[in-house]
Amino acid sequence: MSARVAYDEVEVGTELPPLSVPLQRINLIMYAGASGDFNPIHWNQRFAQAVGLPDVIAHGMLTMASAGRIVTDWVGDPGAVVEYGVRMTRPVVVPDDDRGALVEITAVVGAKNDDGTVRVDITAKSQDVTVLGKAQAVVRLA
Amino acid sequence: MSARVAYDEVEVGTELPPLSVPLQRINLIMYAGASGDFNPIHWNQRFAQAVGLPDVIAHGMLTMASAGRIVTDWVGDPGAVVEYGVRMTRPVVVPDDDRGALVEITAVVGAKNDDGTVRVDITAKSQDVTVLGKAQAVVRLA
Repeated sequence: MSARVAYDEVEVGTELPPLSVPLQRINLIMYAGASGDFNPIHWNQRFAQAVGLPDVIAHGMLTMASAGRIVTDWVGDPGAVVEYGVRMTRPVVVPDDDRGALVEITAVVGAKNDDGTVRVDITAKSQDVTVLGKAQAVVRLA
Repeated sequence: MSARVAYDEVEVGTELPPLSVPLQRINLIMYAGASGDFNPIHWNQRFAQAVGLPDVIAHGMLTMASAGRIVTDWVGDPGAVVEYGVRMTRPVVVPDDDRGALVEITAVVGAKNDDGTVRVDITAKSQDVTVLGKAQAVVRLA
């Protein structure tokens, strides 16, 4: 695959198509198995609440990976992402119901670099709370 | 949980216990299911080689998450990581054998901040090739 967004077509301020990623309890179970992180705050409501959390919370790296999809869906090629970093601001709380949590992601081109890459500034919210800060990806465009 | 490493016990240059994370084909299958990224370069050797890769490669976010474990294993609390960012330098190639790939991770405290956090500089290699660049985590210590 190669990037399907052309550098010349993008400006500082260009908005990416917004993305909502549902995270349900089952996704946390799957991520636990894939990552090897079986911390019960991610699957045991009783334990999570006993340690002061409102409910089970998503793995920070799962939230980060979910937010990054706004960039990879846009550019069409996960391999085009050359840098990615976030600040883990607040956890995504995942209730035990049919809907789970919704991570609502928006992003805008924050800078064009001279080397054919752009910096994308990402905002990720759940229940109107910002869950990631300083979320930025550097992406190589076509 | 809370951080089990004390800020006062750590200096710039303090080395974290090294970590080797094995990544086998099965882990990529599990990560595909957990992440929703079913790109065949992560599970189909024929396809991966047809697009010019040496073999199936790990998801970049899986490599990033694996490397981050050197920090969370050390500090004892994944919630202590307040920032994490990497540059996706080279992919981890995962052969179809009993061993798979080994991601060898080392890390050192690169800076102490005034707010009780430290910056950890991470090096991740596979087959002697550096797979992540500029890999840094900011961690709140006890």
